[in-house]
Amino acid sequence: MTQAADWLQTSIMETRGLTRGRSGTTHELTPERQGTYHYTIGPYSEPVLTVQPGDRVTFWTQDCFEGRIRDEADLPSQVLEMPFINPQCGPVLVEGVEKGDVLAVHIESMSPWGENPRGTCCLVPEFGGLTGTTHTATLNEPLPEVVRKIHLDQEHVYWSDRVTLPYRPHVGTISCSPEIDSINALTPDQHGGNMDMPDICPGNIVYLPAKVPGGRFFIGDCHACQGEGEVCGVAVEYPSITTLRFDVIKGWTIAWPRLEAEDFLMTIGSARPLEDAMRIAYRELVFWLVNDYGFDTWDAYMLLSQCGQAKLGNFVDPKYTIGAAVTKGYLAA
Amino acid sequence: MTQAADWLQTSIMETRGLTRGRSGTTHELTPERQGTYHYTIGPYSEPVLTVQPGDRVTFWTQDCFEGRIRDEADLPSQVLEMPFINPQCGPVLVEGVEKGDVLAVHIESMSPWGENPRGTCCLVPEFGGLTGTTHTATLNEPLPEVVRKIHLDQEHVYWSDRVTLPYRPHVGTISCSPEIDSINALTPDQHGGNMDMPDICPGNIVYLPAKVPGGRFFIGDCHACQGEGEVCGVAVEYPSITTLRFDVIKGWTIAWPRLEAEDFLMTIGSARPLEDAMRIAYRELVFWLVNDYGFDTWDAYMLLSQCGQAKLGNFVDPKYTIGAAVTKGYLAA
Amino acid sequence: MTQAADWLQTSIMETRGLTRGRSGTTHELTPERQGTYHYTIGPYSEPVLTVQPGDRVTFWTQDCFEGRIRDEADLPSQVLEMPFINPQCGPVLVEGVEKGDVLAVHIESMSPWGENPRGTCCLVPEFGGLTGTTHTATLNEPLPEVVRKIHLDQEHVYWSDRVTLPYRPHVGTISCSPEIDSINALTPDQHGGNMDMPDICPGNIVYLPAKVPGGRFFIGDCHACQGEGEVCGVAVEYPSITTLRFDVIKGWTIAWPRLEAEDFLMTIGSARPLEDAMRIAYRELVFWLVNDYGFDTWDAYMLLSQCGQAKLGNFVDPKYTIGAAVTKGYLAA
Amino acid sequence: MTQAADWLQTSIMETRGLTRGRSGTTHELTPERQGTYHYTIGPYSEPVLTVQPGDRVTFWTQDCFEGRIRDEADLPSQVLEMPFINPQCGPVLVEGVEKGDVLAVHIESMSPWGENPRGTCCLVPEFGGLTGTTHTATLNEPLPEVVRKIHLDQEHVYWSDRVTLPYRPHVGTISCSPEIDSINALTPDQHGGNMDMPDICPGNIVYLPAKVPGGRFFIGDCHACQGEGEVCGVAVEYPSITTLRFDVIKGWTIAWPRLEAEDFLMTIGSARPLEDAMRIAYRELVFWLVNDYGFDTWDAYMLLSQCGQAKLGNFVDPKYTIGAAVTKGYLAA
Repeated sequence: MTQAADWLQTSIMETRGLTRGRSGTTHELTPERQGTYHYTIGPYSEPVLTVQPGDRVTFWTQDCFEGRIRDEADLPSQVLEMPFINPQCGPVLVEGVEKGDVLAVHIESMSPWGENPRGTCCLVPEFGGLTGTTHTATLNEPLPEVVRKIHLDQEHVYWSDRVTLPYRPHVGTISCSPEIDSINALTPDQHGGNMDMPDICPGNIVYLPAKVPGGRFFIGDCHACQGEGEVCGVAVEYPSITTLRFDVIKGWTIAWPRLEAEDFLMTIGSARPLEDAMRIAYRELVFWLVNDYGFDTWDAYMLLSQCGQAKLGNFVDPKYTIGAAVTKGYLAA
Repeated sequence: MTQAADWLQTSIMETRGLTRGRSGTTHELTPERQGTYHYTIGPYSEPVLTVQPGDRVTFWTQDCFEGRIRDEADLPSQVLEMPFINPQCGPVLVEGVEKGDVLAVHIESMSPWGENPRGTCCLVPEFGGLTGTTHTATLNEPLPEVVRKIHLDQEHVYWSDRVTLPYRPHVGTISCSPEIDSINALTPDQHGGNMDMPDICPGNIVYLPAKVPGGRFFIGDCHACQGEGEVCGVAVEYPSITTLRFDVIKGWTIAWPRLEAEDFLMTIGSARPLEDAMRIAYRELVFWLVNDYGFDTWDAYMLLSQCGQAKLGNFVDPKYTIGAAVTKGYLAA
Repeated sequence: MTQAADWLQTSIMETRGLTRGRSGTTHELTPERQGTYHYTIGPYSEPVLTVQPGDRVTFWTQDCFEGRIRDEADLPSQVLEMPFINPQCGPVLVEGVEKGDVLAVHIESMSPWGENPRGTCCLVPEFGGLTGTTHTATLNEPLPEVVRKIHLDQEHVYWSDRVTLPYRPHVGTISCSPEIDSINALTPDQHGGNMDMPDICPGNIVYLPAKVPGGRFFIGDCHACQGEGEVCGVAVEYPSITTLRFDVIKGWTIAWPRLEAEDFLMTIGSARPLEDAMRIAYRELVFWLVNDYGFDTWDAYMLLSQCGQAKLGNFVDPKYTIGAAVTKGYLAA
Repeated sequence: MTQAADWLQTSIMETRGLTRGRSGTTHELTPERQGTYHYTIGPYSEPVLTVQPGDRVTFWTQDCFEGRIRDEADLPSQVLEMPFINPQCGPVLVEGVEKGDVLAVHIESMSPWGENPRGTCCLVPEFGGLTGTTHTATLNEPLPEVVRKIHLDQEHVYWSDRVTLPYRPHVGTISCSPEIDSINALTPDQHGGNMDMPDICPGNIVYLPAKVPGGRFFIGDCHACQGEGEVCGVAVEYPSITTLRFDVIKGWTIAWPRLEAEDFLMTIGSARPLEDAMRIAYRELVFWLVNDYGFDTWDAYMLLSQCGQAKLGNFVDPKYTIGAAVTKGYLAA
């Protein structure tokens, strides 16, 4: 399940990464080895693993509720204890990573673990896109706390008698550590974090700005599928076995996470209001075209106005996430 | 070029529209017949044409600059005279349309007219996604006024020596009239208007809420292609020959524009900040699933969190536009 | 009650206005003379009155519900018929006003008319600052429709057994006409409109940008008092007798409404999100200091960071309104 | 200079605090005793001092640039090293404070230290209210980096030859620690932080929600004066000697910071967009009136629509801050 696609050989990761695509050791971070999870992403926690560039790590992630929602009678307000939510595996150190480098992360595979119904969706009070929230504060009665337990396998998500969805796994929360902040695992920002971007999926490569030695990598919050925007605030949350391969790129400093797929490049911004996430993502994409592909600034700006793609991650988290993407074919010199 | 696709027979337009798909007369609204254009969309202007449900109209639209940008030395600040921008064809009355009905508009075809280079893109001072604007007011120097004249035909947009883009035509501005407001053609809102949504393209059907007798339909601002978000504020603007077929749906009152394609349904919201456009679009989509497809409200809300698609129109106009879409396949009972 | 304060002699209105403070005729615009009211502000309606610079007009305004909420059992959803809300008196033409001029309006006095309880406050469904709205669209149940009828006189507003508030009258909606748009009376914008700014009160002068011959002045929506932000969406709405004196200033073109009080100057911006209203207002204030008071741009910007005052009009209307103000004492050369 | 005003005896701090107004020891936290400063506010740093309820602490705060801007040639981009900005004194533990309590902080006095010109204002690239920023990302050229060094004493701020401003000192950044996050000192949030609220000034009391044992109090970023909104992003920053008295209130759990002055109560919200800060603040104020003053929810909501006051802290920080206030006189039963 970890067969490399051909295009990887021409990816930024393999052409600019230290290992030039050579694989190293594979590590397994089981729940036992992880021990306790982390609810903030920062420089103050103890590393659980140190790996070399080129190494693979298989993470056994918990779902974002840490398995506390076992059946449809487990109401979020009763079984969850804020702010201890969205447990993160890690931190993992990648040797040789320094502040100003890029940590390249190839998502090789994602499969579920645990017994069915191992998927969970629910409505959490004052959280979500179509409700008053703790910040878009209203005096309306909160929505009901509806819980859905869902069967899923590597092909499908069995949503209801009526609807079966494809299994489209992706990583909700993925990060290097910020330099001095320790940010709760619900919030996306420049370090990555809770971006809830469906394109952070098997086959694609995430590029994360490193701010501290070793990068201090965290991962959690995997989704069996999710719509654009994650409108109710919750995807089909599930416990995953996710295998990643790491590399480090020297001499490439980026301000925000980026992503590479076979066909497109993407920059990712997280902010409120949503248009600021958009502005960040598109400006980073202009910079990328100018700095790495030889475009003139105004040509890049006007060209993206004709062919840029916008991918909405979420508009429910403490910051909202949007990716701006461009087809690789337009970048050839 | 106006051959109906098979799926149309099962569309809402053909199954619920008054004509059940029967075609009527074809009218041609040449520039001569249009005479003067309109820069606001409202109930105060003189109709240019009255048609029957089932009739087709071929509109000769001007580009959004009304052809004033003839070469790359024609700077927007010199040749444009605000607010006389984005000229609209119409209003066209559709007989039998009453307040509370839906005007269904099938976009049958779009082709360019005029001599090449007939496409235009430019940077307009204090307008666009990556610049301070008249409303996101800053003290920074404005961006330069760069103008691009572009060759295009029914297959390609010849952007530059380096990049050729596919011809992906769509209608930037399309509306029924508001009830009492007369809204400048730059602003999208509940009536439609300047949504800049690439899915408003040949083959698809737009559903517009009618507020006044006859609907008072307006159209303009056609694009040969446009990226999601229209980041620099301007698409590849061009003069188009656009053929539409009209029908009216009784007994279906909608608050915001909707769209039907072969594979998906979409609701469209326009607002600032961008998350409000998102909220509007997704709430309307929940309502649609509940009212017309028998979903429970919370099931629809949670399902769209797993499979909803977000399509960004623009985040540069006086209101920003987003569509929320769902694959038709998930709606079968 | 229309005795001019001394400071008026040094006001911009009297020092730069055509009449240099000379008064003309006083006109009375009774409900009978007004006839029907207007629900949009634009260039398409018939003038009710033409006056000379220096003239006074006494307007008999209706409350924003046009008197339809007569007792506490009159629910907004039952007695109001959208969009026919917020009735405006006018348009009044002021002779000699041309596009690019400023219409100066001194608010001389405001008193109530009609029988008590002549004040009205209520909660309107999906409208207000602490509720999901038609644009910040949620799936929560709407708030209850609570109606309050309130006794008031020229000294007090008798809110409840527990609370008596001072009578602090001001004009909620005041405008010149836009050039081509006809904007519903609920929306503030560059023309003025529904700004709900408590400083638009007796004694102060409002400066409005004129876009059409005669200015086409409208007024309505008077409040016996209102907090900053108008958080529930409704002030103490009442029918008023409001006397204004008009003048015209040539050679002074402004982009947004401005206000002069004895002690301060204010610029007023209306936009969403709220920070854009703030940006507009403060940028206009920087421009004012630079253009009329000889400040360097960066000095003005940094100085306002130390002494600028922000006055919130509303954050409930289709656009939100903020004023940025500076004490006149800091502007002396 | 630390003479208690009479009204304090009826304040919430003195009537509900553990010490009922009894003073304890006075501690002095000199730069030497503080040692290194903190650039994040969180639970991971070493306390510098433990005090008892009723104790006073005199803090010698550094200006937000840690004194690195010594003259007008010291450009921010050259002398500052992000993210090591806005140095905080503390953390101070207050014995007996537990999660769920309120830490009450009476600001007794603020005076400057250091040699004149000890005040600093400047324009920082991509930061401020009237410029594109790192988050409202634009392609415009950044504003120039202008630096102002300013003489000030306990009466005046000598801004320029032309303008002298009153000394109106207040604390820009004041916090208890969040429970698990460690938040950079530039960002305000539920814990307090960089609120830049001019009412956090001598004479007034701040109430902070405690989340960890001892509260872990931090303070920094004092301003000799600041306008509402802090439009250029920087106040008159100065090194201060600030004396605070602490107390703890049991049985009162608050979600966001609150403030008490002689005449008014204020709730403080921080969020983006600015209207969300407004919503938070006004909702907290409604809750306060309902829970502690016996108002009905809808009466409180509608009353604040008539008499609520909005005080803008900043609209330039990573979150924006607004206070909603009500005159105490309206709260009497």
